[in-house]
Amino acid sequence: MKYEMPDINLKALFLGVKGENTDLFKELLLKMVDEHVGWRQNYMPQDLPVITPQDKSSKSFQETADHMRSVFNLLSSKLRANSLPWHSAGRFWGHMNSETLMPAIIAYSAAMLWNGNNVAYESSPGTSQMEEEVGHEFAALMSYVKGKSWGHICADGSIANLEGLWYARNMKSLPLAIKEVAPEFVAGKSEWELLNMSTAEILDILDQIPEKMDEIKAHSARSGKNLQKLGKWLIPQTKHYSWLKAADIIGVGLDCVEEIDVDDNYRMDIDKLEAKIREFAAQQIPVLGVVGVIGTTEEGQVDRIDKMVELREKLAKEGIYFYIHVDAAYGGYARAIFLDENNEFIEWEKIDEVYAKHNIFSEPCEWLTKEIYDSFKAMNQAETITIDPHKMGYIPYSAGGIVIKDIRMRDAISYFATYVFEKGADIPALLGAYMLEGSKAGATAAAVWTAHKVLPLNVTGYGKLIGASIEGAYRFYHFLYGKEFKVGDKTIRLYPLTRPDFNMVDYVFNEVGNTDLEKMNKLNHDFFDQASYVKGGLYDNEFITSHTDFAIPDYGNSPLPFVKSLGFSEREWDREGKVTVLRASALSPYAHDKDVFEEYAGEIEKAMQSKLEKIYSEMEANAKVEVAVR
Amino acid sequence: MKYEMPDINLKALFLGVKGENTDLFKELLLKMVDEHVGWRQNYMPQDLPVITPQDKSSKSFQETADHMRSVFNLLSSKLRANSLPWHSAGRFWGHMNSETLMPAIIAYSAAMLWNGNNVAYESSPGTSQMEEEVGHEFAALMSYVKGKSWGHICADGSIANLEGLWYARNMKSLPLAIKEVAPEFVAGKSEWELLNMSTAEILDILDQIPEKMDEIKAHSARSGKNLQKLGKWLIPQTKHYSWLKAADIIGVGLDCVEEIDVDDNYRMDIDKLEAKIREFAAQQIPVLGVVGVIGTTEEGQVDRIDKMVELREKLAKEGIYFYIHVDAAYGGYARAIFLDENNEFIEWEKIDEVYAKHNIFSEPCEWLTKEIYDSFKAMNQAETITIDPHKMGYIPYSAGGIVIKDIRMRDAISYFATYVFEKGADIPALLGAYMLEGSKAGATAAAVWTAHKVLPLNVTGYGKLIGASIEGAYRFYHFLYGKEFKVGDKTIRLYPLTRPDFNMVDYVFNEVGNTDLEKMNKLNHDFFDQASYVKGGLYDNEFITSHTDFAIPDYGNSPLPFVKSLGFSEREWDREGKVTVLRASALSPYAHDKDVFEEYAGEIEKAMQSKLEKIYSEMEANAKVEVAVR
Ligand SMILES: [Mg+2]
Repeated sequence: MKYEMPDINLKALFLGVKGENTDLFKELLLKMVDEHVGWRQNYMPQDLPVITPQDKSSKSFQETADHMRSVFNLLSSKLRANSLPWHSAGRFWGHMNSETLMPAIIAYSAAMLWNGNNVAYESSPGTSQMEEEVGHEFAALMSYVKGKSWGHICADGSIANLEGLWYARNMKSLPLAIKEVAPEFVAGKSEWELLNMSTAEILDILDQIPEKMDEIKAHSARSGKNLQKLGKWLIPQTKHYSWLKAADIIGVGLDCVEEIDVDDNYRMDIDKLEAKIREFAAQQIPVLGVVGVIGTTEEGQVDRIDKMVELREKLAKEGIYFYIHVDAAYGGYARAIFLDENNEFIEWEKIDEVYAKHNIFSEPCEWLTKEIYDSFKAMNQAETITIDPHKMGYIPYSAGGIVIKDIRMRDAISYFATYVFEKGADIPALLGAYMLEGSKAGATAAAVWTAHKVLPLNVTGYGKLIGASIEGAYRFYHFLYGKEFKVGDKTIRLYPLTRPDFNMVDYVFNEVGNTDLEKMNKLNHDFFDQASYVKGGLYDNEFITSHTDFAIPDYGNSPLPFVKSLGFSEREWDREGKVTVLRASALSPYAHDKDVFEEYAGEIEKAMQSKLEKIYSEMEANAKVEVAVR
Repeated sequence: MKYEMPDINLKALFLGVKGENTDLFKELLLKMVDEHVGWRQNYMPQDLPVITPQDKSSKSFQETADHMRSVFNLLSSKLRANSLPWHSAGRFWGHMNSETLMPAIIAYSAAMLWNGNNVAYESSPGTSQMEEEVGHEFAALMSYVKGKSWGHICADGSIANLEGLWYARNMKSLPLAIKEVAPEFVAGKSEWELLNMSTAEILDILDQIPEKMDEIKAHSARSGKNLQKLGKWLIPQTKHYSWLKAADIIGVGLDCVEEIDVDDNYRMDIDKLEAKIREFAAQQIPVLGVVGVIGTTEEGQVDRIDKMVELREKLAKEGIYFYIHVDAAYGGYARAIFLDENNEFIEWEKIDEVYAKHNIFSEPCEWLTKEIYDSFKAMNQAETITIDPHKMGYIPYSAGGIVIKDIRMRDAISYFATYVFEKGADIPALLGAYMLEGSKAGATAAAVWTAHKVLPLNVTGYGKLIGASIEGAYRFYHFLYGKEFKVGDKTIRLYPLTRPDFNMVDYVFNEVGNTDLEKMNKLNHDFFDQASYVKGGLYDNEFITSHTDFAIPDYGNSPLPFVKSLGFSEREWDREGKVTVLRASALSPYAHDKDVFEEYAGEIEKAMQSKLEKIYSEMEANAKVEVAVR
């Protein structure tokens, strides 16, 4: 049953802004339900139904069914009254949400009927196999070496990041444990040297003494010892609370977390990273690890992973080593746009040609720079990577994932020896012993697996979808750039924050001539209120967006160049200490289309105009009240 | 729109062994899909469809749709070929799985279309409200004080247990932090006294100094300091790997984990618990906390939480305090069988009357003892409780939950001040800052919420379902008790392990006259192989069960009385060091029915007979080969 992958038409893969593909959705959903029911019927067909026609005709059955129907009326009403219309092709430019893939939704609904629990192979053979496949697909997406890497699905990016930190912590502690259990293998090494061994070196030693593995693990950080010796965990300046939470939970503690400034592009400043590492080294404080981000939460920016890796190579020559965890929860799937149909990372020189061949962009798109290219390329040098199918994988929540470069690391945290695998299968019998979580829905694996089968993780599949999303983001970015609105005698102009590294567009409104930063912040906050559930409602809202604050405690002076470019003084920045920006994740699979975008652009413009008018008229009314009160 | 809850007929709530309720299932599923599509269509009805009729007629659309259809053929085939028929009313007596509630499945499928992410209220108002409601329902289920307690949904029981340990760790460390930041509030207390303050005492102090809360938290265990001072974490002897993993992850470490022996009933031995705590106290080693289990993983037994609480009260007078976390991942929902229609814990004297009124059991059931009653009743004295909707809540994977007695504890771990709530709503704006995980499916909350609306968490709802499950377990238990099979000239007899505390039945086969424990273990292992995917296949298997080993490293000599009762000597136990038992989670909502059970009983008996014959004939064949080879 071989067939050629067709040239993918994304429009066949989503339910549609107006439910255009409801027919296809129902066809496949009902097919899967029917095939499940057929399976139930034909398992021991000699067994008769337990729920009889007489049962179904009984009063209590009817009453119970009606009771259930009433509950569904309530559920439907609550969902319709309190949900966000992120399915819109052009009116929702807010949170990281959008249409999700029809095949993923249907696969989840279908697999849920079988209710596999992927914690144990025995209770979910089918979906456990799918998860194992997905893990290897993730590894291929990261250009990790086939057969030597591994990945699995987890609840979300926070859990994946936590697992990455758990790996880093236990790996870093292993040399101290080896020193206690098998000192001859680290003979002559000082504590500083032990705490600066590379991950590969450590794993190579463990390979030589499998019989001592359990004892070494018992002496590692899992014992509770040495956590305070492992050094600093370096994260981007923005200090996303989830990283603080992770350090808290994993026990290394918040005191070991250090932030590295970001540059004007909201990417980690690698020079400052180097300076900080050297500063610690001078005090004999090791670095547990560094977190690079592919797709920052608030800006969608891409850290220079290539420069981080280069720095590590340089410092290694001086005896300094740090673990790299890449948080690509958001941007991980975007690596598909760099892989050709054979999953090889495309050469820089050939990339335009490949994009043309696969229709990645509908018009020339200026998004890709060599810096972004190099950052994505170097991801395969990181020890662990977080990737969230429920973000750029267009899979419904919750589906996170983690990928590990060296499968041997799995044993460093596992609760059973590796050989506890099923005969023949290279799949853990008890996956729960090899990961942070326990029980987990087989349905999630089925959803991700199905999406990957429909859309391979390269330019023939996900690459197209990611391309569409980026192209849509750039359309929005260009639409915003310098756009002006007239409200009474005021002119309000739009300013994007940066040239997007990915598909997120941050922007602000400012009144032309305004030099009061507090006033601008209020304007944008008011705009958010009007463009969200806060004041604007959800269902009758013609334009929806999200917002965030860049404040000095989190961002230092990184926003200053932007703030200055809008005409505010440095003193004004120091006084206000923050800038409120509006934030759009551009995920729609449709907005890349020129005609679609242009149609919506007119609507957005009208909606923005009317929101601004509302804000200014309320401001005026408030001002009058104040005057009257005086 | 008020209506009376009807007398629930469980048969209306499941898809059915043979898909008997497929009509009802499709009716509700399609209703929810249609109402979702209607919602999409009527958000800005002036916007035209983006996927046009011409798009849908295009070659690439058709090819992509066909490609997707092919993938679904593959998915359906893999699911049908590699899944377990746990939906059977009488042939599946294995892992903790069964039919799940139709309303939960449909609600999940429906809510997935809206794809809310409950990490943030803003991106999921409807399902966030549902999760908040579910949390309070959990708290009511545990008889925690209304308005002073809290709960939320999480990925699974492992994550909930991890969060419980995180709470315990941070709570225990707070007095040391108070001593550093606001010493006047703990003036005169020694370190030993600080480490033995009760949770309520600690929270009462914090209440007095809200302005110092953040600084105190910064000095708590979250800083990474003092983790090794907090003392021992006491778990049941069986040392389930998930507890070791939790201690590893949370950084207190495996070296702080101590196991407490279980008694002959596989419940924690409270005398030994007391002795151990006193032994540590004599060395000035505090006890971080104690884990009690409601529904042990391997035996379904119920720890004496009441005795644990009594012990705590007794020791508190001597200045010793320990945190109690109840792992009721499995048995938590069973507390519904103790709550009357007003959610009050039913008086012991009235319980038979209430059960009769609500038809909890179809025939008198000897399950309930005063010990079990008291154990469940005392759960409301624990600080935190794990409860898994995806176990006895009959919700599809993954849905776990945690409940906390004192909502003020939430602030002890949170990453934002409590006042970061939406106006008017008592719901965190960013739930991710108050729990271990981050992004999470709103659909899970919708599924659990819907199930709770259909089946309230008391005798009018879940109590009935739990009762059915327990009654089914007792039918299976009585069926097994002393049953004999003839194979050639051998007699093989069945022995249940214990009188079940809940709905799990463990059992062994032994050849009458056999006094070789290794031989019995092999027989039961062979039986498992025949009754599982290992050798027996799944779809053509007429009886499916699971198995477990009780080995001395995990169980000490607890299994000895059972082993002796089967006629094995103590020497034999010491020699073999383990007993392999077969294990049945009796979750079917149908097997409680006498007629249904009896029909299946005949089938099970035949299947057991044929499996035993197969095993013995293979044994004989192997013996002959061995003779021939000699
Ligand atoms: Mg075995």
